[in-house]
Amino acid sequence: MDRRSFLKTSALGGSAAAAASLAAPAYAQGKRTLTMVTSWPRGFAVLDDAASYLEKMVGEMSDGSLTIDKKAPGELVGALEVFDAVSSGQADMYHSADYYFGGQHPGFNYFTAVPFGGTAQEITNWYYHDGGEQLHDELGQIFNLKGMLAGNSGSQSGGWFRKEIKSAADFNGLKFRMPGQGGKVLGKLGASVQNIPGGELYQALSSGALDGLEWVGPMADERAGFQEVAKVYYAAGFHEPGSALAANVNLDVWNDLSDQHKAILRYASMATTQLQLSETLANNGAALERLKAQGVKVLQFSDDVWDAFGKASIEVKDEDMGDPLYASIRESFEKSLYTSSEWINQSDGFYVQQRNRVLGG
Amino acid sequence: MDRRSFLKTSALGGSAAAAASLAAPAYAQGKRTLTMVTSWPRGFAVLDDAASYLEKMVGEMSDGSLTIDKKAPGELVGALEVFDAVSSGQADMYHSADYYFGGQHPGFNYFTAVPFGGTAQEITNWYYHDGGEQLHDELGQIFNLKGMLAGNSGSQSGGWFRKEIKSAADFNGLKFRMPGQGGKVLGKLGASVQNIPGGELYQALSSGALDGLEWVGPMADERAGFQEVAKVYYAAGFHEPGSALAANVNLDVWNDLSDQHKAILRYASMATTQLQLSETLANNGAALERLKAQGVKVLQFSDDVWDAFGKASIEVKDEDMGDPLYASIRESFEKSLYTSSEWINQSDGFYVQQRNRVLGG
Repeated sequence: MDRRSFLKTSALGGSAAAAASLAAPAYAQGKRTLTMVTSWPRGFAVLDDAASYLEKMVGEMSDGSLTIDKKAPGELVGALEVFDAVSSGQADMYHSADYYFGGQHPGFNYFTAVPFGGTAQEITNWYYHDGGEQLHDELGQIFNLKGMLAGNSGSQSGGWFRKEIKSAADFNGLKFRMPGQGGKVLGKLGASVQNIPGGELYQALSSGALDGLEWVGPMADERAGFQEVAKVYYAAGFHEPGSALAANVNLDVWNDLSDQHKAILRYASMATTQLQLSETLANNGAALERLKAQGVKVLQFSDDVWDAFGKASIEVKDEDMGDPLYASIRESFEKSLYTSSEWINQSDGFYVQQRNRVLGG
Repeated sequence: MDRRSFLKTSALGGSAAAAASLAAPAYAQGKRTLTMVTSWPRGFAVLDDAASYLEKMVGEMSDGSLTIDKKAPGELVGALEVFDAVSSGQADMYHSADYYFGGQHPGFNYFTAVPFGGTAQEITNWYYHDGGEQLHDELGQIFNLKGMLAGNSGSQSGGWFRKEIKSAADFNGLKFRMPGQGGKVLGKLGASVQNIPGGELYQALSSGALDGLEWVGPMADERAGFQEVAKVYYAAGFHEPGSALAANVNLDVWNDLSDQHKAILRYASMATTQLQLSETLANNGAALERLKAQGVKVLQFSDDVWDAFGKASIEVKDEDMGDPLYASIRESFEKSLYTSSEWINQSDGFYVQQRNRVLGG
């Protein structure tokens, strides 16, 4: 039995039984409240912003006939327990980043971000128009989930360090936080990589449990306060060039929703990405200036460090190719990315270079 | 009396009277249909796609309690008559590109695109989080309109020509179609610029009434068939680096809508941009390859041509600075753009350069 069939059989069996016993009752007098567990402490910039927009939009557009009851980590389950909670029917839906669940299936990485992958726009192109959403459905069904992209962090910064990275060898032995395939890439460069939820990162960096970390970008990083305990900040990163956030609904709950409520959830997810990503990008520039004013040194990794990231990234992505669904997802994503980026490079990319050259931007 | 006060008094007076006599009756048994006139022939790629997504989303999310009845040019009014039709209450709303109405007020240019302005993402950043939406409201009120961005073309191509542009002097005497401030820029370079609706362009280029034109980008341009009558295609353009489309609702009609229906229209507009822009960008790369296969030569303007575009663009943008509202809109937009692009250049921009270098993209 191949891994895909195995996962499908075992996970579906388990979760279907759990859902039958645990899922909340359906509509009462035409109204439905969905309990949404999240991986984000309340008020966490960018991430909880997206979850909050989704909650607000669904309530307003349904005139209260469909409401989301958002739960922070610890209120019902832990930050990284949301997947199991929704798969089993303990909660109705979650808002998180699906690459946290790459251990359940490596294909989930592609629904957040992969090293040397797509920008926020390129992921969106793939998801809605080049097969991504259908593959998310196929993957989600294994775990009794209906997934939707709902938010995006934009291109994530290279991260916070106590000292400069002069060459790829400087990652050797570094205690660093980076989730997903990016973390595996740093592992190949010798780093000791840990996946710690966002709410615990400041303490880990302060105490020396971590030598460095990547979180999101200037707006979210400033709010988390990392500039107080590390002063070297790399701007561009290889690992998450535009991390999609995701809302996943228990599939039994989803199937029980009216067509109107399904439409509201799906389009509210799209609007959430539009509204939250633009908020993040409207704020990152000013946040970066404030970080600099607090003594943070903003750098870029050198070409040879990028080369090392590139080589290890391909190795990491190749490791899961024995799984047919992972291979399908990767192939679909890369085909879309390479096709769409050809025009984007020649239009947006060339334009911005000329604008910077002509206006001195 | 300054121009702004003048416009406000005269336009509001006229349209309020017209709206009172012409606007359709409000809710009947809890249901409302909005007649939406558009500037796009049915099936016109990118532009009618956006209008169609908006129509579909609103109907589905309201469960049919709010429906949009979309009209192509000529079914009720002409392509460029939609503004007056909605301002006066002859139609409930329009879907168009607001820079077509720069003659009514030059501030409208900023709600589509301006030369050397923002990409789709940069416009969105400004609109939702740096004051753009409020300024759109302020401008719309003068004409009895409530505007919303709903769709984006992405970075528009430099356009179609019968022969190569070797220097800026080659624009002298060229009969060219380009709307908005971009057209005025080409006028400064000596071009004879015409603003012709999309549905009439193929004929104008075929007949020689035009020497060249810009339309949208590979996907829409291929559908329009311009490759049959011109073979030189410039990829990046200075004039519309990410043209927002807009839905504008008659303000009396808007004020009469329920809070739920206002929310559905506003969030559906955001979701429309998310879904249609990604469709356009998912398709442009493949369309570009097909254009090349039909003998189209794809080029970029040289640096000295870009320099000439830059100089004339600043002159054009300065011409309307005597209007206080135009000046406020421009100042607000440029402040947002220069702040947000600083981070975007260092993150997305630097990342894509490294990805291309490392992977050979």
